[in-house]
Amino acid sequence: MKKKIGRQTVRLQSPVTVLSAASIVGKLEGEGPLGSCFDQVETDALMGEDSWEKAESRFVAQTASLALKKAGKQAEEMDYILCGDLLNQCIGTTFGIKELSIPFLGVFGACSTMGEAMGLGSLLIDGGFAEYVLGGASSHFCSAEKQFRYPLPLGIQRPQSSTRTVTGDGAVVLAKTGVGPKITEITTGKIIDMGVTDANNMGAAMAPAAADTLLTHFRETGRNPSDYDVIATGDLGIVGHHLLKELLQEEGFYDLQQLTDCGLIIFDRKTQDVHAGGSGCACAAVTFCAYFYPRLLSGEIQRMLFLPTGALLSADSVQQGLSIPGIAHAVVLEAEGSGKA
Amino acid sequence: MKKKIGRQTVRLQSPVTVLSAASIVGKLEGEGPLGSCFDQVETDALMGEDSWEKAESRFVAQTASLALKKAGKQAEEMDYILCGDLLNQCIGTTFGIKELSIPFLGVFGACSTMGEAMGLGSLLIDGGFAEYVLGGASSHFCSAEKQFRYPLPLGIQRPQSSTRTVTGDGAVVLAKTGVGPKITEITTGKIIDMGVTDANNMGAAMAPAAADTLLTHFRETGRNPSDYDVIATGDLGIVGHHLLKELLQEEGFYDLQQLTDCGLIIFDRKTQDVHAGGSGCACAAVTFCAYFYPRLLSGEIQRMLFLPTGALLSADSVQQGLSIPGIAHAVVLEAEGSGKA
Repeated sequence: MKKKIGRQTVRLQSPVTVLSAASIVGKLEGEGPLGSCFDQVETDALMGEDSWEKAESRFVAQTASLALKKAGKQAEEMDYILCGDLLNQCIGTTFGIKELSIPFLGVFGACSTMGEAMGLGSLLIDGGFAEYVLGGASSHFCSAEKQFRYPLPLGIQRPQSSTRTVTGDGAVVLAKTGVGPKITEITTGKIIDMGVTDANNMGAAMAPAAADTLLTHFRETGRNPSDYDVIATGDLGIVGHHLLKELLQEEGFYDLQQLTDCGLIIFDRKTQDVHAGGSGCACAAVTFCAYFYPRLLSGEIQRMLFLPTGALLSADSVQQGLSIPGIAHAVVLEAEGSGKA
Repeated sequence: MKKKIGRQTVRLQSPVTVLSAASIVGKLEGEGPLGSCFDQVETDALMGEDSWEKAESRFVAQTASLALKKAGKQAEEMDYILCGDLLNQCIGTTFGIKELSIPFLGVFGACSTMGEAMGLGSLLIDGGFAEYVLGGASSHFCSAEKQFRYPLPLGIQRPQSSTRTVTGDGAVVLAKTGVGPKITEITTGKIIDMGVTDANNMGAAMAPAAADTLLTHFRETGRNPSDYDVIATGDLGIVGHHLLKELLQEEGFYDLQQLTDCGLIIFDRKTQDVHAGGSGCACAAVTFCAYFYPRLLSGEIQRMLFLPTGALLSADSVQQGLSIPGIAHAVVLEAEGSGKA
């Protein structure tokens, strides 16, 4: 197994190109700091549909089509589509992509889904099984609130530790060859459960999983945080971000300037009413596609560690008093022709 | 892409060994025709827990451990675990496997999940990224009824076209080398939606997807049904099974003696009150592990096409009047040293 450099980390023999990245988001995301970076901002949260779930599928369908268009590719050229979402039985995804007629491998990693899709997609390409893979992840504030917490019209007040589910979808076209940022390494996460039971503090539930994958990645690659221009977790928010820093410091990593979180980038916590920050599958997906991808393309970022984080809960598991296990999947991206590659 | 022999079909360069297969089921499954084939029959549907969801996780945990034990392997030796289930956010799986500490790639294909897990697991091994992969899928009659249909205590009468969700879990250890049946080819399915909306007739919803993957498989491999000793769909039940035959006959395939369905094997429709047959992720998974695997091992079956079938619905999608798209993933298995290999 020459490609594995540790139990959890694979170094690709042939780096995989991220040929295109597309993002479509909702109104609040459009009003945030990244407003001008997204490909499309939809002001109608229902996307012309009559349910939040159907609206989410429309985000999925439109973003997948846009990613294909930006890559100059047709759906027929994709060997596989790997994507997922937070809805029960992943209906946001399945109803969003069904017209594309691409061999479909459904993935589930809660909000770490974009990391799993990009990671597995890269392995399928590097393994010789695919030339092109479409990957993506979606979430919707309204469908998620309804499903995981309370009906929106109740107007339930939420604690400051809670995060705001990002409405939108991010999608990438991965390719065996081509011009664009390269995926060079994948560190697949394990489920980590530290016993957190507060569904309004998912940052705390996920921080240990992020720490575990990060520490494993550093150990297996022999690198340090300073070897990256950016280390971006998915959706820890401010509470989870601080906890992650503490956990890394306990292990001797103090120089953590590169460490940020997509949930802290996508919203302005001072001016937007999002409490601890952004979350949801789309948080990492759209922030990567709209904010980091262009910077990798321009060379402003030479090497980044993208680490979408997931909280493995359901309404049932929470109501039955179970803990909230977490998982985080790491993907290393490098600028085309990066000296670091 | 030398390993792809068609858009949807991969022929593995190095066939992957199914090193072990384990199955644990509930009482009704134990009373059926395969009763003596299962590794364990649990008479307590709650498995000593206080909820159906927790019980399902216990099936997952025990079956995974048993598959490892039968393979003579430790959890630490597994490079990846790929599994999934029908519960919202796949909590049957995540709470069942979290103690194993194996890098986890969650998969979702509804009741086709065992096909996706075995297929993707084989690709990871053949691609050089893994030596051992643990794969599995679970379902539970009580958790599924509660989630998809009605609370059990209501005693709602169900139409004859409905199927009975299998309670249990099936798990396999896949390996790069070793003695055992070989996985030689994978045909990944596309989502097929023919507009069926009756959640009590999932066989009809899935039959077109099964037909699509089968016809694609025959076309891309140049084979005919008679090239297989067995072609086993996952959980079409009697209604879907007849529909699939009709769809195949329309395409000129009349000799379909090899075609069967796990949902028709696991229960005796004459003596057990299961209406159209068995269904659920576990239906294909446990029938493969308990019934087909030993026959591949003994050489009684030389080559089989295993085709788990999935209905991509949720309670929300059905209540919102959406159709029920289907998907089916095919895995070709051959006996060790099969002349057909």
